[in-house]
Amino acid sequence: MYKAKAYSVTSATSPFASTTIQRREPTDQDVQIEILYCGICHSDLHQARNEWSGVMPTVYPCVPGHEIVGKVTKIGSAVTKFKAGDLVGVGCLVDSDGTCPECKAGLEQFCPNMEFTYNFPDKHLGGVTYGGYSESIVVNERFVLRIPANLDPAGAAPLLCAGITTYSPMRHWGVGKGKKVGVVGLGGLGHMGVKFAHALGAHTVVFTTSPSKKDDALRLGADEVVLSRDANEMAKHAGSFDFILDAVAAEHDLNAYINLLARDGNLTMVGAPETPLPVAVFGLLFRRRSFSGSLIGGIAETQEMLDFCGEHNITSDVEVIPIQKLNEAYERLVKSDVKYRFSIDMASLKAE
Amino acid sequence: MYKAKAYSVTSATSPFASTTIQRREPTDQDVQIEILYCGICHSDLHQARNEWSGVMPTVYPCVPGHEIVGKVTKIGSAVTKFKAGDLVGVGCLVDSDGTCPECKAGLEQFCPNMEFTYNFPDKHLGGVTYGGYSESIVVNERFVLRIPANLDPAGAAPLLCAGITTYSPMRHWGVGKGKKVGVVGLGGLGHMGVKFAHALGAHTVVFTTSPSKKDDALRLGADEVVLSRDANEMAKHAGSFDFILDAVAAEHDLNAYINLLARDGNLTMVGAPETPLPVAVFGLLFRRRSFSGSLIGGIAETQEMLDFCGEHNITSDVEVIPIQKLNEAYERLVKSDVKYRFSIDMASLKAE
Repeated sequence: MYKAKAYSVTSATSPFASTTIQRREPTDQDVQIEILYCGICHSDLHQARNEWSGVMPTVYPCVPGHEIVGKVTKIGSAVTKFKAGDLVGVGCLVDSDGTCPECKAGLEQFCPNMEFTYNFPDKHLGGVTYGGYSESIVVNERFVLRIPANLDPAGAAPLLCAGITTYSPMRHWGVGKGKKVGVVGLGGLGHMGVKFAHALGAHTVVFTTSPSKKDDALRLGADEVVLSRDANEMAKHAGSFDFILDAVAAEHDLNAYINLLARDGNLTMVGAPETPLPVAVFGLLFRRRSFSGSLIGGIAETQEMLDFCGEHNITSDVEVIPIQKLNEAYERLVKSDVKYRFSIDMASLKAE
Repeated sequence: MYKAKAYSVTSATSPFASTTIQRREPTDQDVQIEILYCGICHSDLHQARNEWSGVMPTVYPCVPGHEIVGKVTKIGSAVTKFKAGDLVGVGCLVDSDGTCPECKAGLEQFCPNMEFTYNFPDKHLGGVTYGGYSESIVVNERFVLRIPANLDPAGAAPLLCAGITTYSPMRHWGVGKGKKVGVVGLGGLGHMGVKFAHALGAHTVVFTTSPSKKDDALRLGADEVVLSRDANEMAKHAGSFDFILDAVAAEHDLNAYINLLARDGNLTMVGAPETPLPVAVFGLLFRRRSFSGSLIGGIAETQEMLDFCGEHNITSDVEVIPIQKLNEAYERLVKSDVKYRFSIDMASLKAE
């Protein structure tokens, strides 16, 4: 074991503070990574503040962070895919059994024995896993991704969660040329959804409640922007969408969007409202529409997404912050006051 | 035009009574059918009593009936598929434009210009279409189906709606050998769902609130019966279903069933509760599950279903009644007091 600097919270209401955590020495199959940047995902905030206590209660101290980009500093003897100096990424997953049907299908996120990057029982050290708000992490090479060299590492970090979370359902539901795709909610996830839908060749429509977001939506790649509170504008698009990505975690009227789907159209939620959302069944019956959820993506698909980003030069729009501004960033995150993701520059931690 | 005996209601609260309606003389493309049997679908009751006033208000007098089996009595000069004496069926659809993408995909039920068998603007005679509670009907040959000779015509009638409504989503979502399939609600639709899931080779599980239905479910083809109010029994099946057909039109807890779906599992509603149903999004996210609706089926698929029924000797379990018992049958339908479908013997109408 070795010590690594990190930022943690010690209760649901305490602010982040500097601390030291234990990391394991790399085993044969492990990659040790010096973290350069770590994105701030809304899940980090939910977990730090124990807002998912019913589903995934938080164990304190908690070190969040699952949008990690860094440089390989050491590899285990059996590691074949990486060498010291490689630019790599780690997302929401750091382990899975590798043998179940989900793993064999490349869907490690659904493996009954998968391990999340933070706040999950740590098989090596006991306690829980600690995430990327740290200067260093050690991860089995199966869960380490290659970051294309042309991508800005600060902007690449959010691809590891916001990127794959929006890319995966689009691939699963056939987004591409000739398709009409909607994105609901222009935040950390939504802005990646717009970039992907556009890059995949779909006619891309952004739904927003804020007229002020229109220019930005167009800049990100939208072909059209619809003000979702304008019933006339919404009605013009009735029955026309092949796929809608809904990235709104707050309660909202799903049926207004379901009615915009074409026959066999699908609306996928990637946000997770706490309370059940009312779904009008008639809206589903009449065009054989479906409503579904999606959760990050498997490792092979995450690599595919990163390679796609390399080819199309796609990164997240980020505001880079020193780790000392973490508490301030969380306050701004609650107000959606970020375009569109915070990325922590870990040099600020090393300098402490 | 010619006159045909029928039974109609003249208001949402009036009983059915004998009447006479106008039918068109067959055009070049029409088939005139002497109706032998007509099933009673729950939709007939909703329409007769104007219970869907918000979506499809009822025009009175109303002659329901869209589960029609009869004999061809006359054909138009351009009719090629049928001849006098053929045993044929008519379901929920009697017309569509034939040129839109939905029609070209064989999904006439989603054609923007489709015409329902009753309570729909009648392109030929004006007013609204009249359904199968009648001695005769005239339908474009495109919407006339062949009934396999080995099937009992009284039990075949409900295949035209209850049959295709349950068969179509099973085919769409890949029900077959090696799949685990659930059916919720053992009524007119549900009992057909059990027969189809079994005949398609799936491991078939019936969910019911009534222990008394267990033997019947097994007789219909179920491999297992689960009492849905028994949380322990339900928990044993968590995450294991590839497909669940939900045929319950009343309000009920959908999330209990969504949680039984495996990764990529789908729950399709074929009943239509009036009020929106709350869906817990976390349940959809964690296994990429989907929730959808399905509405009858296209004409080609309806013929496929009828041929499948011929091969597997599948008909609906029916209680045959004379048309004079229609009002009594409706009262019993409200109480689900029928195993599992009423089929009106139209000889009783001709004898009036």
